Amino acid sequence: MSAHRPYVPPSFPPAELTLTSLEGVRAAGVRAGIKASGNPDVGLLAFDEPVAIAGVFTQNKLAAAPVTLCRAHLEKTGGRARAIVVNSGNANACTGERGDADARAMCERVATALGCPVEEVLVCSTGVIGVLLPMDKVLAGIDRAIADLSSDLEAGRAFLAAIQTTDAFPKEACGRDAGGAFAGVCKGAGMIHPDMATMLAFVGTDLAVSVDELRAAMPKIAASSFNAVHVDTHPSTNDTFLLFATGKKAAEGDFRPAATRVSRRLAWLIARDGEGATKVTTIEVRGASSEAAARAVADRVASSALVRAALFGNDPNWGRLVSQVGNAKEVGSVAGLRCTIQGITVFEDGQPAPFDRGAVSHAMAAEDVHVLLELKEGGGRATLMTSDLTYRYVEVNAEYTT
Amino acid sequence: MSAHRPYVPPSFPPAELTLTSLEGVRAAGVRAGIKASGNPDVGLLAFDEPVAIAGVFTQNKLAAAPVTLCRAHLEKTGGRARAIVVNSGNANACTGERGDADARAMCERVATALGCPVEEVLVCSTGVIGVLLPMDKVLAGIDRAIADLSSDLEAGRAFLAAIQTTDAFPKEACGRDAGGAFAGVCKGAGMIHPDMATMLAFVGTDLAVSVDELRAAMPKIAASSFNAVHVDTHPSTNDTFLLFATGKKAAEGDFRPAATRVSRRLAWLIARDGEGATKVTTIEVRGASSEAAARAVADRVASSALVRAALFGNDPNWGRLVSQVGNAKEVGSVAGLRCTIQGITVFEDGQPAPFDRGAVSHAMAAEDVHVLLELKEGGGRATLMTSDLTYRYVEVNAEYTT
Repeated sequence: MSAHRPYVPPSFPPAELTLTSLEGVRAAGVRAGIKASGNPDVGLLAFDEPVAIAGVFTQNKLAAAPVTLCRAHLEKTGGRARAIVVNSGNANACTGERGDADARAMCERVATALGCPVEEVLVCSTGVIGVLLPMDKVLAGIDRAIADLSSDLEAGRAFLAAIQTTDAFPKEACGRDAGGAFAGVCKGAGMIHPDMATMLAFVGTDLAVSVDELRAAMPKIAASSFNAVHVDTHPSTNDTFLLFATGKKAAEGDFRPAATRVSRRLAWLIARDGEGATKVTTIEVRGASSEAAARAVADRVASSALVRAALFGNDPNWGRLVSQVGNAKEVGSVAGLRCTIQGITVFEDGQPAPFDRGAVSHAMAAEDVHVLLELKEGGGRATLMTSDLTYRYVEVNAEYTT
Repeated sequence: MSAHRPYVPPSFPPAELTLTSLEGVRAAGVRAGIKASGNPDVGLLAFDEPVAIAGVFTQNKLAAAPVTLCRAHLEKTGGRARAIVVNSGNANACTGERGDADARAMCERVATALGCPVEEVLVCSTGVIGVLLPMDKVLAGIDRAIADLSSDLEAGRAFLAAIQTTDAFPKEACGRDAGGAFAGVCKGAGMIHPDMATMLAFVGTDLAVSVDELRAAMPKIAASSFNAVHVDTHPSTNDTFLLFATGKKAAEGDFRPAATRVSRRLAWLIARDGEGATKVTTIEVRGASSEAAARAVADRVASSALVRAALFGNDPNWGRLVSQVGNAKEVGSVAGLRCTIQGITVFEDGQPAPFDRGAVSHAMAAEDVHVLLELKEGGGRATLMTSDLTYRYVEVNAEYTT
């Protein structure tokens, strides 16, 4: 392996459907000038009628102004929205009262233009923390986005482009099920963590699903998708996952499997990005004393910089994997611990198992790597997706604001 | 900053004293052939009379065979040793019963040659996990080390060379106090963590200090030195810190300040190395609700790959610092949170403080960087040292075993 192999971002074929493929959904994405790069940075989603919507947000105590406002608006409306306005390049986090006022002003601008109550507009921001928004540019950008609103595929893609920050590639997913269509887009690469991340995700369906049903489904959908991604140990101030249903079609079955599949694919794409990642590694823990214990073990393994660097190097250094199991306070006994990489057992009954190092290394060079850690303490299971730690990660994160 | 600036390890002048400067201490370091590189890999310390000795070891449940044996020997002797044998290049961890037998065989070889009980020999290993020791080479190396034992400075340096793994530079420290001499050497770069690390440290004095005094002093000395270093979140299977007193001189005062200073300097050198680190960052937390809460906050900040990459880039991205405070479950309120980098306040009362970005970035380009995070919840304080995350870290850790 060369010391500094160039990073080549992966490319995926565009999804067949995007958010504007859902009936009654219009979108826009414009260059407002928030980003010094001149890339698109204000996006808008508008619904012809109020949609049912539910959200999951960051648990960070320094939740950004837009997160606080989103929560308040969802509470006021009981889960109804006419629009979602997003800016990238600036997180409007740690910005005090002025930040709160700016988030409100963004919603007000949209509400005035669309003729709806301000609480039916949700707002998301992502980017640098602690810098005040250039509101003249933001509001002018919103005005242009309103003028650009369209239901065609390009408008949906323009929205997606406008929510990116350090993403190496656009992230979208779709599906059809239960008589309806499902589409989702997201952004996220750094600051990914099980408690959500600098991650914005918008998933919708044209089915008629009540707010209560959406809310009831959210925890499970989030747990197996966005909250199962672990790129580093740094949950962000802005993480937001919104799930909406436009109600244009009667559901002919359960909406949850397709919503989960779309969300899981989006989460996989975030892990696949991970600011320079070359693969997605799924860490599966079985046989822990409880689900929480399994989660804690998976968390320790997935968050280890040493493990993640070894994954980048296709290095079957299972010692780093099993020693992280030994470090987890939630583990009582490591007797009988087994470690399997890509289906090949490398450690068994507390001892190294004989294996072909070259074969495992070769198998690790895949886009999907599976690591299975089996304890013998009970029935607790957990699965996390993590990124490998690369030169590109350091490059991206050492030079973000300077 | 160039994308891939070459890593230049720092160099420090050799310490005036090393372990063999202490009366009655002989040392050796030889090339036994454990390391493929051919570098020195078996070291031996021998004392002309049994010394008083105390140890602190890893908390990992997969503690390596030498750690388990060291603990047992220290218990049997009540804290007395005639020799310490060390190998590098192989951790003898996760090696099952054969590993236990190999660790014993290393002690027996030394005990037979020195004519002492086997339990008066301590053993340490560091290197790759899960590979059986090449015992023919190890034992032949021990025989040569015994033949080479000498009290001159070069022998002390040869011991130090033999305990290195991925260290970029040798680590030693010394001092004189309370009428005696103090010297210490250590190895450690990766897998550093507050619960100890792949770190071996040997600190000695020629003063007469009882085992009880050594044992009583150990927790505080370790807490402010080796357990205050945080390079990643991966405590190792082999971490060992041994503190001995040869008893050649009557103490004319407290031995603890000098033992602490030597240990702290060694810990600083480990953080300074950190497999490619360019600086040591001290994360200080004040005003937390308790010492444990302060420690938890410092831990979160010090372990963030995002924070550590920003430190490498001299990037005053304080958003990553304060958002980690917000993530700590041990924090009740972030109201009034203040963040200071190199003495310059960048965040105050929940809002960004105006500061000269270039000046802070310039100040961060130092070898010692100080980050102060002040809460207003109580009197809890904690301090940790951490390394920055660099291209070289990825390089070293992606290619360790392959």
